[in-house]
Amino acid sequence: MTKNRLEAFSDGVFAIAITLLVIELQPPDLEPGETLAHGLWLEWPSYVAYLVSFLTIGVIWLNHHRVFTQVAQVDGPLLVLNLNLLLWTALIPFPTAVVADFLAQGGEPARTAVAVYSAVYVVMGASFGGLFVWITHDDRLLQRLPPPEVVRAARLRFTLGLAVYLLAMALYYAFDQASVPADRPG
Amino acid sequence: MTKNRLEAFSDGVFAIAITLLVIELQPPDLEPGETLAHGLWLEWPSYVAYLVSFLTIGVIWLNHHRVFTQVAQVDGPLLVLNLNLLLWTALIPFPTAVVADFLAQGGEPARTAVAVYSAVYVVMGASFGGLFVWITHDDRLLQRLPPPEVVRAARLRFTLGLAVYLLAMALYYAFDQASVPADRPG
Amino acid sequence: MTKNRLEAFSDGVFAIAITLLVIELQPPDLEPGETLAHGLWLEWPSYVAYLVSFLTIGVIWLNHHRVFTQVAQVDGPLLVLNLNLLLWTALIPFPTAVVADFLAQGGEPARTAVAVYSAVYVVMGASFGGLFVWITHDDRLLQRLPPPEVVRAARLRFTLGLAVYLLAMALYYAFDQASVPADRPG
Amino acid sequence: MTKNRLEAFSDGVFAIAITLLVIELQPPDLEPGETLAHGLWLEWPSYVAYLVSFLTIGVIWLNHHRVFTQVAQVDGPLLVLNLNLLLWTALIPFPTAVVADFLAQGGEPARTAVAVYSAVYVVMGASFGGLFVWITHDDRLLQRLPPPEVVRAARLRFTLGLAVYLLAMALYYAFDQASVPADRPG
Repeated sequence: MTKNRLEAFSDGVFAIAITLLVIELQPPDLEPGETLAHGLWLEWPSYVAYLVSFLTIGVIWLNHHRVFTQVAQVDGPLLVLNLNLLLWTALIPFPTAVVADFLAQGGEPARTAVAVYSAVYVVMGASFGGLFVWITHDDRLLQRLPPPEVVRAARLRFTLGLAVYLLAMALYYAFDQASVPADRPG
Repeated sequence: MTKNRLEAFSDGVFAIAITLLVIELQPPDLEPGETLAHGLWLEWPSYVAYLVSFLTIGVIWLNHHRVFTQVAQVDGPLLVLNLNLLLWTALIPFPTAVVADFLAQGGEPARTAVAVYSAVYVVMGASFGGLFVWITHDDRLLQRLPPPEVVRAARLRFTLGLAVYLLAMALYYAFDQASVPADRPG
Repeated sequence: MTKNRLEAFSDGVFAIAITLLVIELQPPDLEPGETLAHGLWLEWPSYVAYLVSFLTIGVIWLNHHRVFTQVAQVDGPLLVLNLNLLLWTALIPFPTAVVADFLAQGGEPARTAVAVYSAVYVVMGASFGGLFVWITHDDRLLQRLPPPEVVRAARLRFTLGLAVYLLAMALYYAFDQASVPADRPG
Repeated sequence: MTKNRLEAFSDGVFAIAITLLVIELQPPDLEPGETLAHGLWLEWPSYVAYLVSFLTIGVIWLNHHRVFTQVAQVDGPLLVLNLNLLLWTALIPFPTAVVADFLAQGGEPARTAVAVYSAVYVVMGASFGGLFVWITHDDRLLQRLPPPEVVRAARLRFTLGLAVYLLAMALYYAFDQASVPADRPG
C-alpha cells in the first residue's frame, strides 16, 4: 500500500462525508398558514449541526494531512487504524441528523441526541489519537521524528482535548439533571 | 499542506456537490387520473434549479482552478478561507431543494425561497471574493503577481458582480411588493 | 486549466453518479401477509434500471478516457462541452428512478418513463458527440491526429448509434400505439 | 486506459460506496411516550449492517490495491471485470438497507434479507475471484508473476472462502428450517 493511495482514499471519504452533510437539510413541511420563513427558522438546529459537523470534518482532514506528511511508510496496523478513523468520520452525518431532529424538542430526546453526538465525537477523537500514537511510537514510520518533547506535547494536547470534551458532557448532564426538579415541581 | 492535496480535496467537494444536486429530483407522486407527463411537467422549478445550480458550481470549480494556478504556497488563512468557500458551495443543494419545492406556489413561499437561494449565492460569492483578495494581497502566495491593474480589475469585477446580484434581488422584491396591491384589491 | 485536473474532476463526477444509482434502490414496504421475497421481486424494474444505467455510465467513462488520451491541450469550448456532458451524465439517476417507479405500471406512465429515460440518453449521446467533434475538428488539440478516415469512421459510428437509438424509440412507440386498439376493443 | 486512472476511478467508487452506507442510518420515528434512547436501540441491526458493510468495502479496497500493484498493463477484459466488481460493490448499500430494515422482524423477512445480503456478497467475491484469475492467468499483465504455487494457493484461498461462505448460508437455512416445527407445534 503506497502512502499516496491511502491519502487519496482518505481524502475521498472526508470530501464525501463533508458534502453528504447537506442531505440532512430538507425543505420544511409547512402547516396550513405557516410561512416558509417560519418553517425554515424552526430548522435552526439543523443549521447548527451542519456547521459544527462541517468544521469538525474539515479539521480532521487538516490534521490527517499534517500527520501523514510525517509518515514515511505505511504498514498493516496503520491501515487498520486509518480505516477505523474513517469509519467514525463517515458516521458523522448520522448523529448530525439525530441532533437536528431532536435538539429543539428538549427533554430526554435532546439529552440523548447530544449524548450520541458527543459519543461519536469522543470515539472519533480517540481513533485519531490511536492513529497518532502508532505513527509516533518509533521512528520506523517517520521521515524525521520530531523531538520527543514535541511528540509528548502533541499527545498531551490530544488527551486534554478529550478530557475537556468529557468534562463538558458531564457538566451538561449535571446541569440538565439539576434542572429536572424545576421542570416537574409537582 | 501541499497545494496539490488542497486542490484535490476541493475538487472532490465540488464534484460531489455538483452530482448530489440530482437527488433533489424525485419521481412525482401522481394523483388518480394524472398522467406522468403532467406530473413531471409540474416539477419544472426543480429542473431550472438543477440547471442553475449545476452551472454555478461548475463555474466556481473553473474559477477556483484558475485562481489556484497562481498560488505558489498555501498558508493557514488560505486554508480557512478555502474551507469557508467549500462550506457554502456544499450547502447549495439545500437552497436548490427549497426553491424546487416552493417556487411554483408563488406568494410568500416563493419569495422566501428565492431570498434564501440568493442569500446563499451572495455569501458564496463573497467567500470567493475573500479568497481572491487574500491570494492577491501580496506576492508571497503568487508565483508571478499579475500587474496591479489586472488585480484591481478582477477585484472590481467581483464587486460589480455582487452589486448587480444584490440589485437584481432588490428589484425582484420591489416588483413583488408593487404587485401585492394588485393581488389583493379589496 | 490543465488536462489532468479536468480528467480528475470528470472522473469524480462519473464515479459519484455511478455510485449514487444505488440510492434509488429502496427496501420495499410490505403489505400485510406479503413476503419480503415477493416485495423484492416486484422491484425488478429498479434492478434492470440500475444495471443499464451503471453500464452506461461505465461506458461513458471508458470512452471519455479514450478520447482524452488524444487531447494535448484544453481550451474554453472544450471545458464548456465537457461540463455539458457531465450535466447530462450526473442527471442519469433521475430518469433511472422514474423508470424504476413507473415501468411496471404499464400504460401512459411506462411509456412516458421510457421516453424520458431515452431522451436523456439521446441528449447525453449528442453531448458526447459534440465533445468528440470539437476535439477532432483540427489538430490543435490532438497530440497526433488519427488519419482522417479513422476520424470520419468514428463520427459515423456516433451518428449511426444515435440513429439506431432514435429508430428503436420510434419502433417502441409505433408498436405501443398499434397495441392500444387491442387493449380497448370496446 | 492507463492503470492510474483505473485505480483512481475504482478508489472513487470504493470511497463513495463506503461513505454512502451512512445514509441508511436514519433518526428513528418515535412513538408517543417512547424515549429516543429506546428508538435508537431498536435500530441495532442498522449499526451491525453498517459496520459489516464498511469493513467489507474496506477490505475489498485493500485487496484491490494489493492485486493491482502486480498489474503492469490494463487490457479490455480487465476493464470489464473491474467494472463488474465495482457494480457489485456499489450495490452493497442496498442489501445493507434491506438487512437493517427486516433483520429484527425474524421469520421470512429476516431469512430473505440475510439471503439477499449473502448472495450479493458471494457474487461480489466471485467477481473479485474472476478479476484475480484473469490477472494471474499469464505473465502478460504482471510485472513479475509470483511463483505458480503462490498463485495456486491464493486461488485456493479464494475458492475456500466462497465455499465456507456458501456452507455457512446452507447451515443457517438448515437450522432455520429445523426450527420451524418448534415455532408452529400445532
